[in-house]
Amino acid sequence: MTTSLPTSAQSSPLGLHRVLDPPGVLPQAAWRLDPSPAIAPDEVRVRVGRLNLDAASYRQLRETYAGDPDKIRAAVLDIIATRGKMQNPVTGSGGMLTGTVEEAGPQSPLGLHPGQQIATLVSLTLTPLHITDGLRRWDGLSEQVPCEGHAILFARSIAAVLPDDLPVPLSLAVMDVCGAPALTSRVVQKGNIAVIIGAAGKSGSLSAAAARKAGASRVIGVVPTEAEAASLRHPGTLVDEIVIADARDPIGLAEKIEQAGGPGHVTVVCVDVPGCEGGAILSTTQGGTVIFFSMATSFSAAALGAEGLAADVTMLVGNGYVPGHAEFALGLLRTTPAVRALFERRVEQ
Amino acid sequence: MTTSLPTSAQSSPLGLHRVLDPPGVLPQAAWRLDPSPAIAPDEVRVRVGRLNLDAASYRQLRETYAGDPDKIRAAVLDIIATRGKMQNPVTGSGGMLTGTVEEAGPQSPLGLHPGQQIATLVSLTLTPLHITDGLRRWDGLSEQVPCEGHAILFARSIAAVLPDDLPVPLSLAVMDVCGAPALTSRVVQKGNIAVIIGAAGKSGSLSAAAARKAGASRVIGVVPTEAEAASLRHPGTLVDEIVIADARDPIGLAEKIEQAGGPGHVTVVCVDVPGCEGGAILSTTQGGTVIFFSMATSFSAAALGAEGLAADVTMLVGNGYVPGHAEFALGLLRTTPAVRALFERRVEQ
Repeated sequence: MTTSLPTSAQSSPLGLHRVLDPPGVLPQAAWRLDPSPAIAPDEVRVRVGRLNLDAASYRQLRETYAGDPDKIRAAVLDIIATRGKMQNPVTGSGGMLTGTVEEAGPQSPLGLHPGQQIATLVSLTLTPLHITDGLRRWDGLSEQVPCEGHAILFARSIAAVLPDDLPVPLSLAVMDVCGAPALTSRVVQKGNIAVIIGAAGKSGSLSAAAARKAGASRVIGVVPTEAEAASLRHPGTLVDEIVIADARDPIGLAEKIEQAGGPGHVTVVCVDVPGCEGGAILSTTQGGTVIFFSMATSFSAAALGAEGLAADVTMLVGNGYVPGHAEFALGLLRTTPAVRALFERRVEQ
Repeated sequence: MTTSLPTSAQSSPLGLHRVLDPPGVLPQAAWRLDPSPAIAPDEVRVRVGRLNLDAASYRQLRETYAGDPDKIRAAVLDIIATRGKMQNPVTGSGGMLTGTVEEAGPQSPLGLHPGQQIATLVSLTLTPLHITDGLRRWDGLSEQVPCEGHAILFARSIAAVLPDDLPVPLSLAVMDVCGAPALTSRVVQKGNIAVIIGAAGKSGSLSAAAARKAGASRVIGVVPTEAEAASLRHPGTLVDEIVIADARDPIGLAEKIEQAGGPGHVTVVCVDVPGCEGGAILSTTQGGTVIFFSMATSFSAAALGAEGLAADVTMLVGNGYVPGHAEFALGLLRTTPAVRALFERRVEQ
């Protein structure tokens, strides 16, 4: 495992030096990475404690092997051994991991030290990974995979130190969506009206708190059901107005948003349901901004929808990376009881 | 045809009063619109002279009917008669039309007058349309459909008066892509480095001219071939640097962009090829902006790509509508000989 010891001159901040096949592509696009434990001067080696497989990836494995734990375990082991990373070849997706920093190269810009408990915020699809325990502690029954082995972080990877004051599952749930509140906070200006579609969800509740902290004069939360509306009302006042509406119905949504004091200067789409582009655009004032955080967003539906509505709105692709996003989101959770209550309920489920 | 005469109270700027089936949806999402010629006070009726079918729509029809002109003609007539608009039920796409303003309601905000030659800049997929000549002048052999009939514009539709000083095909070609230069002009700041991917195309060349006009200190044009590079060199200097690269190869593209003086503060993606998200992100400096104008853009590839690269870039969905976009683009064509030469060559083809 120590045959290839990268030198400073050979290493790339993007991890190109770890790409074995095909050569020259980015690690995410690669079929196979080199997970050798020896690190380059700008790399970090992590002792892995747990993988969190992407939900779509785990579902595909479970269905393929009819829920047989031994076969699922063997399949995951085989993927990691073959590819040098946990990227499901069918779904293309990965997940994230938690572990302990084992060695940090002297030129690593990540600011990590041996012994720190961290979570990776870049996908497993581009993270070199080697497993040493045969996944024997994993029951194969959920996407949470306790394991032993190591992973490599590049100079341009992203990792966050797990805070001492919060349970790990809670921190992980926050980190999973921490790009949304960070970008919302950048875009919302003092005095703006903010519309959060999917306000009772993880990214939605954090985005609502971020909008308020950024000085929004009114935060309108959209939820699909009375049950979700109730979860927004207790405890505390996460939003100023609650709208119960089907976000896929542009006219109905826009009318209710207007009755609630809209349209918004900034509308944040946080529901993973297709077909919400038109409603978000119509719920936003001319000159305003829509931030799409839903992975169900259709690029062409957004582009053509705005054109068809003659809507002069700025539309942002929600970028999961904003510097300092994890710390910002954890801070919102700590200081906003309504957000913490929502997360605790969701993590328990 | 005159049974339903909309009144001011009933009409909607979005055209909801013209939606017959299913009720309550936006005109673009409707199966059937009411193309009655009587206009509401905020509507405009246009005498149609020509339809420009969307290329994907025409291709589907041609392939379905093995290129038989009579069958293609009958199919288009049937779609328009059934749906009250020209929206291909298979591709979902429409096109645009040119014609003459016949009647403008007193409350129409579009500023149009009877007799003006116009082009619609909203899609045929949401434009009520009625054909009266059986399309007998159309040979069925191209997406250009000379015809007689009428169409309805809503208060929030977009139309542009065809200029007297330019040939109609040239104006139409410019209007087809006029959102790109308008948004580029908004985003590029004085002194920025601008990267235009697909600089020898219609939207690309206009965006390059817009970036320069906005004060970019350096405009880097990316093209796939030496032939396209040559078309950027003569006549005039549309860009400062020409990069010949495959935009789907992130590493190769980013390296060449850097050699040409990049990365860009603003990168504009104007090529309709899938897989250009990573290259555009890597060719953009931290804190910069990527504008995606390609309909081949994948929302998730952009969002996850930026996260995987820890790229703090703002990513914009190219909105085809910016107020004044048609006039702005026509002005660029008139004042930039290199753009005009590119367009004239493309329109001739």
